[in-house]
Amino acid sequence: AIAVEQRLMICADCDGMIEVWSRQPHTLLTWFASTRTKRQTNSQVLTKGQGSLLALARSQDFILTAHKGGLSGDEGLIRLWDLGSIEHSIGSASFGGSSNRSMISLLSSFVSFKSIANPKHAKDCYNTAFFLKGVIERLLPCSVKVIKTAPAHMPVVFARIPATQPNRPTVVMYGHYDVVDVNPQRGLWDTDPFEMEGRDGYYYGRGTTDNKGPIMAAIHALYELIEEGKADASTTCRLTSECPVNVILVYEGAQETDSAGLVESCLEVKEWFSSLDPTNSTILISNTYWLGDRVPCLVYGLRGLVQFTIELSGPSHDLHSGIDGGIIQEPMVDLMKLLGSLTDDAGCVQVEGFFDGIRTLGPEEQEMFEDLHRDFDCGKYVESRGVAQLSPSLQDAGPTDILQRRWCQPSLTIHGIQSSVFEMSLIPHKVSAQVSARIVADQDAASMVDAVQSHLFHTFSKLQTANELNIHVTRMVDSWRGDFKNKFYCAAQEAIRSIWKQDPLYIQEGGTMNNPLSKVLPGVPTLHLPIGQASDRAHLSNERIRWENLVKGKHVFKEFLKNLEAQCYDEYSCMLSCNGVVPCELNGLTPSSRCESLKESALTLDD
Amino acid sequence: AIAVEQRLMICADCDGMIEVWSRQPHTLLTWFASTRTKRQTNSQVLTKGQGSLLALARSQDFILTAHKGGLSGDEGLIRLWDLGSIEHSIGSASFGGSSNRSMISLLSSFVSFKSIANPKHAKDCYNTAFFLKGVIERLLPCSVKVIKTAPAHMPVVFARIPATQPNRPTVVMYGHYDVVDVNPQRGLWDTDPFEMEGRDGYYYGRGTTDNKGPIMAAIHALYELIEEGKADASTTCRLTSECPVNVILVYEGAQETDSAGLVESCLEVKEWFSSLDPTNSTILISNTYWLGDRVPCLVYGLRGLVQFTIELSGPSHDLHSGIDGGIIQEPMVDLMKLLGSLTDDAGCVQVEGFFDGIRTLGPEEQEMFEDLHRDFDCGKYVESRGVAQLSPSLQDAGPTDILQRRWCQPSLTIHGIQSSVFEMSLIPHKVSAQVSARIVADQDAASMVDAVQSHLFHTFSKLQTANELNIHVTRMVDSWRGDFKNKFYCAAQEAIRSIWKQDPLYIQEGGTMNNPLSKVLPGVPTLHLPIGQASDRAHLSNERIRWENLVKGKHVFKEFLKNLEAQCYDEYSCMLSCNGVVPCELNGLTPSSRCESLKESALTLDD
Repeated sequence: AIAVEQRLMICADCDGMIEVWSRQPHTLLTWFASTRTKRQTNSQVLTKGQGSLLALARSQDFILTAHKGGLSGDEGLIRLWDLGSIEHSIGSASFGGSSNRSMISLLSSFVSFKSIANPKHAKDCYNTAFFLKGVIERLLPCSVKVIKTAPAHMPVVFARIPATQPNRPTVVMYGHYDVVDVNPQRGLWDTDPFEMEGRDGYYYGRGTTDNKGPIMAAIHALYELIEEGKADASTTCRLTSECPVNVILVYEGAQETDSAGLVESCLEVKEWFSSLDPTNSTILISNTYWLGDRVPCLVYGLRGLVQFTIELSGPSHDLHSGIDGGIIQEPMVDLMKLLGSLTDDAGCVQVEGFFDGIRTLGPEEQEMFEDLHRDFDCGKYVESRGVAQLSPSLQDAGPTDILQRRWCQPSLTIHGIQSSVFEMSLIPHKVSAQVSARIVADQDAASMVDAVQSHLFHTFSKLQTANELNIHVTRMVDSWRGDFKNKFYCAAQEAIRSIWKQDPLYIQEGGTMNNPLSKVLPGVPTLHLPIGQASDRAHLSNERIRWENLVKGKHVFKEFLKNLEAQCYDEYSCMLSCNGVVPCELNGLTPSSRCESLKESALTLDD
Repeated sequence: AIAVEQRLMICADCDGMIEVWSRQPHTLLTWFASTRTKRQTNSQVLTKGQGSLLALARSQDFILTAHKGGLSGDEGLIRLWDLGSIEHSIGSASFGGSSNRSMISLLSSFVSFKSIANPKHAKDCYNTAFFLKGVIERLLPCSVKVIKTAPAHMPVVFARIPATQPNRPTVVMYGHYDVVDVNPQRGLWDTDPFEMEGRDGYYYGRGTTDNKGPIMAAIHALYELIEEGKADASTTCRLTSECPVNVILVYEGAQETDSAGLVESCLEVKEWFSSLDPTNSTILISNTYWLGDRVPCLVYGLRGLVQFTIELSGPSHDLHSGIDGGIIQEPMVDLMKLLGSLTDDAGCVQVEGFFDGIRTLGPEEQEMFEDLHRDFDCGKYVESRGVAQLSPSLQDAGPTDILQRRWCQPSLTIHGIQSSVFEMSLIPHKVSAQVSARIVADQDAASMVDAVQSHLFHTFSKLQTANELNIHVTRMVDSWRGDFKNKFYCAAQEAIRSIWKQDPLYIQEGGTMNNPLSKVLPGVPTLHLPIGQASDRAHLSNERIRWENLVKGKHVFKEFLKNLEAQCYDEYSCMLSCNGVVPCELNGLTPSSRCESLKESALTLDD
């Protein structure tokens, strides 16, 4: 089968091999998206499989091939070959033009910046911020500010695109260009984490899903929306503005640590925030993940977090276990007693007050939990964790039990223990443990700190020891719960329905996300709209994002913004009919047709 | 005050400054033995203190100065300035000549080799072995073998000096040229650990006391003994041989790890060992330390050691504490329960069988314990450890209680805990703890392994967990107890009396030393003759040995060998008088005068 694209010719043979030829110069470029080899840029056909190619289809951005057997011996496999990446591999990345290609090309550059959340990479973060500024300025009709309020802070990138029409809602898109370190995972990555690579329909690299991919998808959603708006404006008499809503972009560089400097930076553009109507604005964050890999989700809850460092010290220096063993009460022994007292034999937390103040689920929420089996399989969950079984209290549990435990119950983890010695002849004089507690809705961080500290000090007081216990609280983040029925969630739900052709799952996350913008914008509700899948491996080796999720994620963002515009007409129309707020399920029409019909009635009324 | 030494002129001024002038070329060399500055080789006087010099005395090897006030503000301080080192600092190290100067000069070179017990330093160890070979060959009349039986092994240096007379005892001197790593202590050293530096009467550097200093002292003891023997032989008609006893030197390079290859290497020189009479031989080891800093000691007991790595694993990879916290039984939590169960609230070990089979002390040994207050002060001990108090069960304990706990009771230490994660958002899928137990006389390592393993597996069986427990025994060394009344201990006791003018303390050590030579030479008793002080900081930063201990240690070795020779005459004389073994306390004469008088009677008898 042969397909010809503007500057490329794609040939597929019966062995399941795809060859890509560049027409100028005439060079064979072979790229195996489905194998683990690197992109090939020489003219040799490297692998011949045994499978047969059944069919080939080509769109502007990708080729779809159907195989029987094949290079990796798969049966009845359908593969998506990403043309954007092939183009990128021959160095023809371009701004604009096909938005998907630009998105991949720019994401690849974005990933190549080692913007690690670490002072050693301050220079990289600085360069990344200015790269991002350049991207936004070239794609969107707005000016961009890069603000850094202290030498130790990472710069924050701000941009604003006002809606052409007045009284439109404001969407503050908040993301981060910093990424977590890869050093502790050295050797676990299959490819260079800072050289984005396409494989099996996924893009691999540090930051692809957390959070560079979603940022590029959002910027390209705005780009397409504005380009379409321009085209519409010039050819029709629609009311559609170049930008249908007010947009403020806030991309920071310290989200993975403590968002230091973000609030201060926001003060520098406070006129942007002060002019916004809190009852008609949202903070849009795409920094969470789907529950599984199949069904798109909306997130309405996050657990909070309290982190402790528990330090025990005694002797002024390390001692020799031969000379002093048995004579000195060792700090490590005390620490083991303390940490051992935190749980019972079944691993249940024994800290008094640990489970106090947990929110009871209402019937509607209970019902939402029942829906989650659509993309959550208990057996697969256990298997993916590589454990023989779950916690004793969760034997034979179903999705609802497991997910309520994850989202609606606090948990305790002991991450690691530091000893002042490195060799087996010495007694450490100082040891410390990193312990954290996740807290849930209606619990607060301060009460959890009290509970854990009280338990530890009380247990310690029973030990006969002259060693010293110090507890440092290193992080406190409250839990979060959003109103999943507000108009922004409705607009997002509708966007997902329209793009993914299915209803989203309403989920929470067991993880924690600090949202410093909520301090800057009190009263403005947050909408968590994830575009990545559960298997994206954020923070881990081989972090990735699916090509389809990037592209459809972009479309969801675009549709979400269009729906907000449509809601304006709905509200306008409702206001006219004195009908109050329109539930989002009400209207069977698509937003754009709804918009068209409303435009007409609006014009009629104006008359 | 001014003193003139062969090639140096020493001037001391009233500010407590000492200037050392080399006479050829005329250069001012200033060396502040008492300050922490590095050796100065330029002509500027760098520091002027406020103290005044009261007196100065000079011997061949050192200068003694008495101060009031001074550079460091000390009151009534007496300082020993080491001329050997001054000479070394101007590059005039010489073999032979003054033995003390040669000893320091060669020790300084010996310390400069980074013979760290680690495969990465295999090349350094190789070079060190050949340096040692060169030293022995140039100082002693013997051939030296360097033997390496496998690529992974460190070479072992062997030398043999047969006694001139037949039927003399054999002393196998066993030491090691490898040293423990300094990396974990980086930053804690005041000076470069591999550049030996003199300060306040001590030499600082890695290996100065463990074990390079004692090796150099022993080699120079033999050197002096043989030189004196030569002189005697040429000027008098004494029976004294060039070497009074048979000596075999065994210096290995893997003692700090596992002595890998030592036994195999010994097989290569098995004719040396097979010819030796086990009833008339000893293994002499100087790799232990005094009880305190004042009274010389003989060591007759060592604790044994069992080391474990306790490993807990569950999930196949690290998990996220937000996503999976509360659902998975965490391996770290299980490990804390296990380790917490090892002790009670007072830190007493709760392992069944841990204290089984401990030897009861006889009345004579009890009495020896009472003597130890001569160089052990409980208050100072507690202070030096930098602890508020000792273990609860040792409150208000005296030296006997504390030292019996250290030497005659087993103990348990948890050294460190490894976690597979490095950041506070992850749940480690695998954790492990390093735990060791010291065992005492009449306990054996295998029983201790059983006791600890049984406790851990039993406790683990009560936990409701699907995680996996693995226990690895990484090291097993039995305890050791020597016959402190044999003739070698007697000869050593007498040597110490003669050199240090006081009776040694008979002590044990809480530490452990593997003695692979005892396997090569079954039935040959070991003599542990320490020359370093308790404060030498073996294995720690700022390891050191006192100048006086090096010099007197050398003399003790020399006197010990002479005493063995004298014992031969005693035994000969006793045999003649049919009197059995002579108790070492019997003879009030010094060994040499005893030797002289015996020589005469032997000559008489020969007639």
